[in-house]
Amino acid sequence: MKELGIGIIGTGFMGMAHAFAYRAAKATFPDGPAARLVAVADASTAAAEAARDQFGFARATDKWQSLITDPAIDVISITTPNHLHKEMALAAIAAGKHVHCEKPLAPTLADAITMMEAAEAKGVMTQVGYNYIKNPLLKLAREIIGQGEIGRITGFRGIHAEDYMHDPNTPWGWRLDPTGGPGVIADLGSHIIGMARFLIGPIVELVADIETVVSSRPVKAGSTERRAVETDDAARIIARFDNGATGTLEASWVATGRKMQLDFEVIGEKGSLAFTQERFNELQLYRAGGDSRTAGYTRIEAGPQHAPYRNFCVAPGHQLGFNDLKTIEIGEWLAGIASGTSPGPDFREAVEIQKVVDAAIRSSQDRRWKTVG
Amino acid sequence: MKELGIGIIGTGFMGMAHAFAYRAAKATFPDGPAARLVAVADASTAAAEAARDQFGFARATDKWQSLITDPAIDVISITTPNHLHKEMALAAIAAGKHVHCEKPLAPTLADAITMMEAAEAKGVMTQVGYNYIKNPLLKLAREIIGQGEIGRITGFRGIHAEDYMHDPNTPWGWRLDPTGGPGVIADLGSHIIGMARFLIGPIVELVADIETVVSSRPVKAGSTERRAVETDDAARIIARFDNGATGTLEASWVATGRKMQLDFEVIGEKGSLAFTQERFNELQLYRAGGDSRTAGYTRIEAGPQHAPYRNFCVAPGHQLGFNDLKTIEIGEWLAGIASGTSPGPDFREAVEIQKVVDAAIRSSQDRRWKTVG
Amino acid sequence: MKELGIGIIGTGFMGMAHAFAYRAAKATFPDGPAARLVAVADASTAAAEAARDQFGFARATDKWQSLITDPAIDVISITTPNHLHKEMALAAIAAGKHVHCEKPLAPTLADAITMMEAAEAKGVMTQVGYNYIKNPLLKLAREIIGQGEIGRITGFRGIHAEDYMHDPNTPWGWRLDPTGGPGVIADLGSHIIGMARFLIGPIVELVADIETVVSSRPVKAGSTERRAVETDDAARIIARFDNGATGTLEASWVATGRKMQLDFEVIGEKGSLAFTQERFNELQLYRAGGDSRTAGYTRIEAGPQHAPYRNFCVAPGHQLGFNDLKTIEIGEWLAGIASGTSPGPDFREAVEIQKVVDAAIRSSQDRRWKTVG
Amino acid sequence: MKELGIGIIGTGFMGMAHAFAYRAAKATFPDGPAARLVAVADASTAAAEAARDQFGFARATDKWQSLITDPAIDVISITTPNHLHKEMALAAIAAGKHVHCEKPLAPTLADAITMMEAAEAKGVMTQVGYNYIKNPLLKLAREIIGQGEIGRITGFRGIHAEDYMHDPNTPWGWRLDPTGGPGVIADLGSHIIGMARFLIGPIVELVADIETVVSSRPVKAGSTERRAVETDDAARIIARFDNGATGTLEASWVATGRKMQLDFEVIGEKGSLAFTQERFNELQLYRAGGDSRTAGYTRIEAGPQHAPYRNFCVAPGHQLGFNDLKTIEIGEWLAGIASGTSPGPDFREAVEIQKVVDAAIRSSQDRRWKTVG
Repeated sequence: MKELGIGIIGTGFMGMAHAFAYRAAKATFPDGPAARLVAVADASTAAAEAARDQFGFARATDKWQSLITDPAIDVISITTPNHLHKEMALAAIAAGKHVHCEKPLAPTLADAITMMEAAEAKGVMTQVGYNYIKNPLLKLAREIIGQGEIGRITGFRGIHAEDYMHDPNTPWGWRLDPTGGPGVIADLGSHIIGMARFLIGPIVELVADIETVVSSRPVKAGSTERRAVETDDAARIIARFDNGATGTLEASWVATGRKMQLDFEVIGEKGSLAFTQERFNELQLYRAGGDSRTAGYTRIEAGPQHAPYRNFCVAPGHQLGFNDLKTIEIGEWLAGIASGTSPGPDFREAVEIQKVVDAAIRSSQDRRWKTVG
Repeated sequence: MKELGIGIIGTGFMGMAHAFAYRAAKATFPDGPAARLVAVADASTAAAEAARDQFGFARATDKWQSLITDPAIDVISITTPNHLHKEMALAAIAAGKHVHCEKPLAPTLADAITMMEAAEAKGVMTQVGYNYIKNPLLKLAREIIGQGEIGRITGFRGIHAEDYMHDPNTPWGWRLDPTGGPGVIADLGSHIIGMARFLIGPIVELVADIETVVSSRPVKAGSTERRAVETDDAARIIARFDNGATGTLEASWVATGRKMQLDFEVIGEKGSLAFTQERFNELQLYRAGGDSRTAGYTRIEAGPQHAPYRNFCVAPGHQLGFNDLKTIEIGEWLAGIASGTSPGPDFREAVEIQKVVDAAIRSSQDRRWKTVG
Repeated sequence: MKELGIGIIGTGFMGMAHAFAYRAAKATFPDGPAARLVAVADASTAAAEAARDQFGFARATDKWQSLITDPAIDVISITTPNHLHKEMALAAIAAGKHVHCEKPLAPTLADAITMMEAAEAKGVMTQVGYNYIKNPLLKLAREIIGQGEIGRITGFRGIHAEDYMHDPNTPWGWRLDPTGGPGVIADLGSHIIGMARFLIGPIVELVADIETVVSSRPVKAGSTERRAVETDDAARIIARFDNGATGTLEASWVATGRKMQLDFEVIGEKGSLAFTQERFNELQLYRAGGDSRTAGYTRIEAGPQHAPYRNFCVAPGHQLGFNDLKTIEIGEWLAGIASGTSPGPDFREAVEIQKVVDAAIRSSQDRRWKTVG
Repeated sequence: MKELGIGIIGTGFMGMAHAFAYRAAKATFPDGPAARLVAVADASTAAAEAARDQFGFARATDKWQSLITDPAIDVISITTPNHLHKEMALAAIAAGKHVHCEKPLAPTLADAITMMEAAEAKGVMTQVGYNYIKNPLLKLAREIIGQGEIGRITGFRGIHAEDYMHDPNTPWGWRLDPTGGPGVIADLGSHIIGMARFLIGPIVELVADIETVVSSRPVKAGSTERRAVETDDAARIIARFDNGATGTLEASWVATGRKMQLDFEVIGEKGSLAFTQERFNELQLYRAGGDSRTAGYTRIEAGPQHAPYRNFCVAPGHQLGFNDLKTIEIGEWLAGIASGTSPGPDFREAVEIQKVVDAAIRSSQDRRWKTVG
């Protein structure tokens, strides 16, 4: 398998990021298969054609279904609004395509399970776009935890907060449409939930408070007419992990001033880790038990010793960017298809994340602790 | 009232801090009354005498009761372990002394209320040692919030975590004795609760998870015999404030690596604040709506424009230390006695804080949301 | 001019970075010409062929001269060790190719001038790889300075320090070969000199101290035989700028612990800027004269409002990486060829940088102030 | 020697800081002698009397000479403008008083030497107010360097920059009076020179550029009449140390935005240190040679393991303030008088610092390298 044919549905923020990453995959993961950009689809023909020219797809279309039936396409990336994921994914799976779908996987847990079961029944490979855990320093963090270097894990504190919806005059839009599922608990919350699972493991029970902070918004930009908001703007969770640790997880898209506050702290009996996506080429590590005179948090800077940083740069301290994280995700995904081993997170993992989202929503509605799943 | 006679009970960490601060009060708050160090009491005569010589008290004693009956003493500071606060405070109040008591005020809410009611009935003034909010930059933060400079407040995120109990081989001690009340939820949790109230206002309901992380400890240093721990090591709270904001509050004394993680973020519709006690001479402020090219968090450094910094130093950027915070607390307390107006936090405020602690414990036991008070 | 044929000489760190960037250019600068990867040359056939396969060049060769004579090639990137730049560049220029050459341009100022004059006489376009100034936030810094937002510029403080040569047992290598020119003053010093010129303008006189810190090194890895080092490891300069400002510039490759300390501060009468390449998606700005209560350095995070960040990501705070800086350099270079207007820095600018390097070396030898150029 | 009688001349910023510190000395250094505040002198009687009341001096006077002749005074602190230091110090020395004098010691090197020789001939003890090196973490830094923990020292980079004179409309004042000696090279430069000597050792030769950035200033606040400035606003030095290291040292009081940029980096072959007075309860340490996965700078937070932090607080992370640094200086000074061993820096050290200032001024005037001393 020297080359895989790629089709991408959607040309927004994530559609562009996927296209960039598929193009860059062979240049950064030379041992993996090349990606041939076969087709790009968008409801807007003009947008599809612009993306075709920009990234070098062989063809553009406003009919996503034409990608499903294209025998030259082996892999389909779905980057459309959430309420469209299920139909597209099921069609692609039925056609035997490997499917990469952006997060959150589906509006509801039931839909996500349907998608997972279809993929597993068909035997195609799947991937979901939890790109932040592709960071070489997140892999290091997981390794440090997994090897017991900071002892038994007792605490977790995580947040993903941004401010793109903080202004009450930011108009209503597709992110607020309940047919696409919940609001920030799915959009950003799923990132910090996935990161917590990646680092610490399964969450078994939780209590949550999920709220709509801005109760109405202009129906469109500049309008004085306002529409009630039904989805959530902020979510707070206290969670118990399967390994005995306890933690908090928060998500907000009304966190005025924050552009990328995807932060965590992991507390172990013998040490701890701290991280912020605002400076994602750094990881803070504390180890207990050394010389007390010089103890403290060590600021680790990403370098070629942290795979797969070296695929991008041979010199330390030069730093990866967001598109590089996406390229790692896609590079590993293509290599996984070639080898038959999923790099994760796949639909099964996305279902597990969605179970946490689902439990949080139920907990907030009932104002009680809930078991996950 | 040019001078007030001072008696201090206890010569531990806080006893020393009080003595230092009373001595420094006139030198930094010259318009207030001077403090005459009349007597210091400690169960250990040697400790009392050492403190007498170090700070210049007129006399030392191992009988705290002798301070109560000393007519030269106007003000008594109680800095002993928590389970002793109530008896001492009630005796001092009955004798008509003004009483400063270290936090947490009492092992139980009922005890705290008893102490508050006694003081109010007697008409003496009271103060509780929530020193961190005496920081000039905390006063600035409260002012920024109160004047609406960051708009309607929608979110709060606070934590007070340290690591002095993180090692499972740190032995059992008085902090773990349930007769003194709860564990970290009272010891550190009360600080972050008090800070949240200082900045945002009352908490009206909450859900909490409070746990003992280290289940047993050596009965004493070096011993192989272990004793079960009954008090809490970590606490996590989701809270609703009276003003409509929602937030999380956390406390831990097993946060390996953390020496002074007393941090908060306040989110408003038009801006936000971020602070860490690790760098308490700095406050981060974000204001929405300016030139987007140059928007961002501004790092405010404490200076003489932030009262009462100038009482300590006329030049900006020189920085206050922990003992200076304690000195502000004591300086304002003495000035308050002179003027008859409490600077706070007084016993009434401490009761309000204890109501939150109490509700959190009830919530954790019942695994349900609870109304505060 | 819809497409430009590209040839790259060299497949090391910079050869790979160029190949990545040419591939990514159209995907990020869609209005510019596409780059067709025609040929890659390396003295090692295996290396050339590996790069061909990794990046999708049409052909690979161990004869760089074959790129010069290839009519399908419009643009040649020279990424070989410094002592080879001149011969290659002159050949490419003579053949009418546009030439991108990595920094430092040449071992000596005389060579650099020869190269510049040849290119200008032939009328081809040139570019030199000072990638760090391609950062959107550096463009912002230059704009803030240029528009007078921080007033008359009075001071500059810059450094580029790394530690890849700090260990005395790091063996001798091509970077230390004096036939390639000076050591760190050229390798890293030229970056901070170029950055100072980009922000503040020409340097007119200077005094410098340039030294060899590690006097001998193993002749090769693991050898006990050592060879004297003739090139410099550290350089310190005090400089006077044409606009009246004064500053210091430093370079070191023996700065143990530093991976990317490319930092500057710019002082103006009405404000200042601070930057470190360690966190190159952030710029610190201070403006004098506002509300003293809330004055301080504002941490600006890169976002789509800072061109050309948006070419990579529509959302703020997601961050660019090193390869993105290189892609901006190449994207602007290709657009510049298409439009006939050099984006800079071109050979002429590289000559100006080299004049500063040259003056610094003369100053250090004579231990006197020197005029630049 | 249980108690020492103290006289302070001057009640400005430093006069207040001395008074505070003498009062606090016994409370923080209980093994040392107590300080009895005998008398305070100021040219303004009102200022002297206010200081008397604020700090508890026995008497106030507008005749500094009356302190010299007062037999109850053992120790005199001189905190007046620089041009007055010499006359006062010589009088105090002649009277057999121990003399603490604020920095810089004298307007000229010759004066400083005269003062040093007088004190040494008389056999009294001396101290100069280089308070920043009294920081427990500076003592740690010196120890780490001295014990070879970061190997042979090869580089130093230091600066002391503030902005209290940055505004061209800040009026002329005593700091600019050349009869008091040079400008910022003495006022702030002497701090970073002293710190470099404390950490690395003697400077043997240097080249410097010293300049007046703001050429004229209002004769007084609000005046439109301007007066030419004769003293320096900014100084830059390249220095060679006796131990073979090279470094830069800078000073500025026109560094817009900077309130306390007293920063250094020390580079060793096996590690490095970085520090800023803006966060002076932290020290950054890098050690080469460990596990490359987790290497990085460790942020050491001051705690009771770093003497004499424990004299102020038994718990780590609580932080010292500026007045605490001054208190350490005074506490050690009083203990030194009691023991007969100077803690330094004494007049002899101040003379060495002044030799560097003197050489820098000569270098800048002649535009040549100069030998120190």
